[in-house]
Amino acid sequence: MGCMGLNVGVYGGSGYAGVELVRLLSGHPEVGALGIASRGYAGLEIRYVYPQLAVEGKYVLPEEIEAGELDVAFVAYGHGESAETVRGLLGSGARLVVDLSADFRLPDAEVYGEWYGEHPASELLVEAHYGLPEVFGATEGRLIANPGCYPTAAILALAPVVRRVGGIRSVTINALSGVSGAGAKPSVKTHFVSVNESANAYGAPLHRHTPEIETLLRRVGEVPGVTFVPHLIPITRGELETIVVDLDDVPGAEEVLGWYAEDYAGWSFVEAREEYPHIAHVANTNRCRLSAAVDGRAGKLLLFSAVDNLLKGASGAAVQNMNLALGHEESLGLEHLE
Amino acid sequence: MGCMGLNVGVYGGSGYAGVELVRLLSGHPEVGALGIASRGYAGLEIRYVYPQLAVEGKYVLPEEIEAGELDVAFVAYGHGESAETVRGLLGSGARLVVDLSADFRLPDAEVYGEWYGEHPASELLVEAHYGLPEVFGATEGRLIANPGCYPTAAILALAPVVRRVGGIRSVTINALSGVSGAGAKPSVKTHFVSVNESANAYGAPLHRHTPEIETLLRRVGEVPGVTFVPHLIPITRGELETIVVDLDDVPGAEEVLGWYAEDYAGWSFVEAREEYPHIAHVANTNRCRLSAAVDGRAGKLLLFSAVDNLLKGASGAAVQNMNLALGHEESLGLEHLE
Amino acid sequence: MGCMGLNVGVYGGSGYAGVELVRLLSGHPEVGALGIASRGYAGLEIRYVYPQLAVEGKYVLPEEIEAGELDVAFVAYGHGESAETVRGLLGSGARLVVDLSADFRLPDAEVYGEWYGEHPASELLVEAHYGLPEVFGATEGRLIANPGCYPTAAILALAPVVRRVGGIRSVTINALSGVSGAGAKPSVKTHFVSVNESANAYGAPLHRHTPEIETLLRRVGEVPGVTFVPHLIPITRGELETIVVDLDDVPGAEEVLGWYAEDYAGWSFVEAREEYPHIAHVANTNRCRLSAAVDGRAGKLLLFSAVDNLLKGASGAAVQNMNLALGHEESLGLEHLE
Amino acid sequence: MGCMGLNVGVYGGSGYAGVELVRLLSGHPEVGALGIASRGYAGLEIRYVYPQLAVEGKYVLPEEIEAGELDVAFVAYGHGESAETVRGLLGSGARLVVDLSADFRLPDAEVYGEWYGEHPASELLVEAHYGLPEVFGATEGRLIANPGCYPTAAILALAPVVRRVGGIRSVTINALSGVSGAGAKPSVKTHFVSVNESANAYGAPLHRHTPEIETLLRRVGEVPGVTFVPHLIPITRGELETIVVDLDDVPGAEEVLGWYAEDYAGWSFVEAREEYPHIAHVANTNRCRLSAAVDGRAGKLLLFSAVDNLLKGASGAAVQNMNLALGHEESLGLEHLE
Repeated sequence: MGCMGLNVGVYGGSGYAGVELVRLLSGHPEVGALGIASRGYAGLEIRYVYPQLAVEGKYVLPEEIEAGELDVAFVAYGHGESAETVRGLLGSGARLVVDLSADFRLPDAEVYGEWYGEHPASELLVEAHYGLPEVFGATEGRLIANPGCYPTAAILALAPVVRRVGGIRSVTINALSGVSGAGAKPSVKTHFVSVNESANAYGAPLHRHTPEIETLLRRVGEVPGVTFVPHLIPITRGELETIVVDLDDVPGAEEVLGWYAEDYAGWSFVEAREEYPHIAHVANTNRCRLSAAVDGRAGKLLLFSAVDNLLKGASGAAVQNMNLALGHEESLGLEHLE
Repeated sequence: MGCMGLNVGVYGGSGYAGVELVRLLSGHPEVGALGIASRGYAGLEIRYVYPQLAVEGKYVLPEEIEAGELDVAFVAYGHGESAETVRGLLGSGARLVVDLSADFRLPDAEVYGEWYGEHPASELLVEAHYGLPEVFGATEGRLIANPGCYPTAAILALAPVVRRVGGIRSVTINALSGVSGAGAKPSVKTHFVSVNESANAYGAPLHRHTPEIETLLRRVGEVPGVTFVPHLIPITRGELETIVVDLDDVPGAEEVLGWYAEDYAGWSFVEAREEYPHIAHVANTNRCRLSAAVDGRAGKLLLFSAVDNLLKGASGAAVQNMNLALGHEESLGLEHLE
Repeated sequence: MGCMGLNVGVYGGSGYAGVELVRLLSGHPEVGALGIASRGYAGLEIRYVYPQLAVEGKYVLPEEIEAGELDVAFVAYGHGESAETVRGLLGSGARLVVDLSADFRLPDAEVYGEWYGEHPASELLVEAHYGLPEVFGATEGRLIANPGCYPTAAILALAPVVRRVGGIRSVTINALSGVSGAGAKPSVKTHFVSVNESANAYGAPLHRHTPEIETLLRRVGEVPGVTFVPHLIPITRGELETIVVDLDDVPGAEEVLGWYAEDYAGWSFVEAREEYPHIAHVANTNRCRLSAAVDGRAGKLLLFSAVDNLLKGASGAAVQNMNLALGHEESLGLEHLE
Repeated sequence: MGCMGLNVGVYGGSGYAGVELVRLLSGHPEVGALGIASRGYAGLEIRYVYPQLAVEGKYVLPEEIEAGELDVAFVAYGHGESAETVRGLLGSGARLVVDLSADFRLPDAEVYGEWYGEHPASELLVEAHYGLPEVFGATEGRLIANPGCYPTAAILALAPVVRRVGGIRSVTINALSGVSGAGAKPSVKTHFVSVNESANAYGAPLHRHTPEIETLLRRVGEVPGVTFVPHLIPITRGELETIVVDLDDVPGAEEVLGWYAEDYAGWSFVEAREEYPHIAHVANTNRCRLSAAVDGRAGKLLLFSAVDNLLKGASGAAVQNMNLALGHEESLGLEHLE
């Protein structure tokens, strides 16, 4: 790291996740040099492309960043394209790569293939660490697969339950997401007039985050196939998941809150409360807020989980993962997002 | 009815449902005299209290309306208070009462008691007709219990399924509602800053619409206890329900769409489509839009249902019920809301 | 018109104004056949392209409509393209053309040229009638230039003043518009995330509605060059203009309200009130609501004007213009929008 | 200040400005002890009253804070009530008081009286410093009158112009404000359903920020009576002002941008750009973004100014003022809001 601070590169610095990365990294106390690549905007001043960013400097082409000298590289590309870039970065000698795409989240190339097509760099899957540290710890490796936004909220809510109880018959996840989750590309679906004063389910029942949730949860316990139904609602950022678990012996809500307190003790960004989380309680923060209730009449356990999809669900988690991988406090540079 | 048109009274004409009633009734071709009562605003011109209404006339006190001469009375009060008013109206000789409260929706005074307290006019329960005509037909009686907004969307989606299939193990209803569903009374919960850029579950797992959904569905088939989780989202009007049904033999989505087409043929306001409904497809209309999908991996049936909570979920349905009870086309005066 | 009703064609039926036209015309009691053209969607069922429209039938290609047999044609194209279509329609023998573009609003081809480039059909300018009937009356001609949304609100507020007072030193119009005013085409500017929780001035000081406001106002009195600053705000529909008039002898607010009452007596859709208009008072209606106040300290007259940009500001006015041109009540088929 | 950090008290810690103060001060590196008073919520844990605040500790009663030991007191009460509290705090020996109310912004008790009624502590007016440091510098005194949100945006835009040019004939300020500016108290006006999908002018032409703008501007140059028209728009936070200046010799837009660059060089939070500011460019920051344009046809200068009403327009500025009064960098603890 040295006296100059970390040499950090961001690939895909002009999407919504990229913009958040730039915001966070440009204020991070350990970051020295920061190269920010965007094919579409290379040569333009960042602060004019995104006037809400008060960051000096220009977007560069990816190849203008000297990959071999990077302490940390963040890759915020779409799936497939990301894997190629990650392979190149690791081959060039980048010390740590945090990949925000889906490319390295599913450990099994075959499962990946079912949902995304042939894996472009399957030899790297074995060394990828799924970067949800509150459940899976930190890594000393050089490749972190940053979790999807929906899986982050789902796994944080479900892991403590799945770890402790058996006999789960079904898991239904109803998720609400802000429009930034749909990306920066203009389309009829993201036009203000389409989204405003409306809401709709989409992508169900085969949204690609489904296998990510199932696969990772099965590392901590037994879970049946998950029903996952995301909805678009007219807000910019934030996600709320309402999870209904059908099982034989329904634990009490207080018991579940106790499990959360136990499992997430010592972690800065995850907190359970009796009060159901509102998206406004976590928006613009790196938090996940959890709650639990029991539907005694129908015999179901209800879990609630809220995150900001761009922070704890993407770029905030990415910086948290970098911090942990480099041996820093997880909240370094993220204190104002606690 | 006669040459002067119907003599109609609205009680509770200054809440959100009342305002919609006034708007619809003041443009209805069969309505002659229209008395609009509001204790809080009696004496004030309606068009100044609600400047979006271009309706002549003043709010009056309830007792200023000659109840015995009413052809139709609409009661849009809270539960409990409504029943007393309805008893008075029927006692005075009003020809038809459409009650928009929950007071006469549950046919069993005992079930009512568990959720709302002792019923204030239980002797009338036996003659109340649950006003969801697409499922339960029209009435020749004099008391119509107008359905709740959430039950409207839920029962329209579920009845055709429950009617045909057995072995339903669980029903989970996730509902999204606009803020008008929370009423016109200012509170921290309805403050713009509380609601905007947020979303939250509320009322679960014991929201009072739960027994209404269960009780009415059990008239058409067997259903277990329903898990119902409503959420508040930052829109003014509209509701979307995503319903997950767990059952042994999951029917195909096309089969379910066929059942909808069959059961709702000839009805103006209910339509099923392959495309999942958006709230914007039904907002400001008296429609219910339905869809269905199958989660083959988890073995679940998914149903989707959208209504405008103030129209098909309240005042539009109330006028539709009046039309049918008086022998008119169900869409009379509602053509622009089809 | 005959027993079959009017034969009506809509060109550009898939933009926001076109969709509103289709909604209004398909419920209009005098409309018989309705042909709806859209190059982009020809062959598709309208109700699947716009699921919020419960209209039977498919989009056709413009050339599939038999222009010579049209009683009324509505053209909702962009400027320039519209003029060509209008020329073709009139040449083919269409009885009445209502053009919603800017092509025939400026009576002077030279002024048009300064703001839009060379006029594509300047020979028709002489017979175009500016369709703001509350100020300029109805026409017996065959070409109506439907006013722009901003000019509609501005001229309705200013004409009664300009008609009566001299010595106006300056006119400043600050306008707020919903996003539907920016059109249906997806872009970064109309992306939900760009618009939501924001607001911005745009197009000033040379927005193309400026000469339309000036030119038409000068038909009723003397006005200096107008400063017009439109802003985009995060709502779907509606416009609010706050107009500051600097003049020697500032009339009283009540006096101005009296002028409005006088000039707009007998017109269904324009109303002045003491209360400042909110966009919600006119949204989803064909109304214009006006108000006036005096800033005695600074010696200025303040005028307020609100319309729904898609109705009174476009398609509602277009149908109103058709009604008047054909000798019907102006509100025929628009009664629910009064 | 010592090794324990500053001893800081917040009075009125449960309004919107108070919540922002708590958020900022609890993360400020120089703040040691932080007492947070709220009559309404005394005894309750802050993090449960405002779940979006991850702050330990309870609200206390004002009298539970030992006023004489405070290094800094922030008073976020309504006008009138604030002055009494400020007098008490200064009398008890508080070292520095930052008052966020209007009580000490107008230096003249007589002008104050015209707009607010008799001043409750006029003897203190002489020592109050108007806390807009980019225009009026820092203070070594013990009382800072924190500027109003609208005057902040207006004065930052106008002062560099007023300082340099004469012959200003009129100034018209059209302002758009988010709903947090209307305060946390629930009312019909702040009900989500009232505000959403709407916009309206209010308070004009006699909004109480008018004399604040005029009085303070006249310290730097000559200005006529200002016409100020605020509007409510459906966003949570942020303000945009569009200012039209009518004067003899209209300077060029680039010239004005140059004046801004010159006057605000060295200040962290004020920046002028050619691009018109959007509220989203400043929301959740302590920035003011400015721009300028010329309407050559009408001979007017247009200025644009955007701030976050709760940060640069209230609590962010209050902390900035504290920093400067205590000799720190103005952005200490506000770096993430630059």
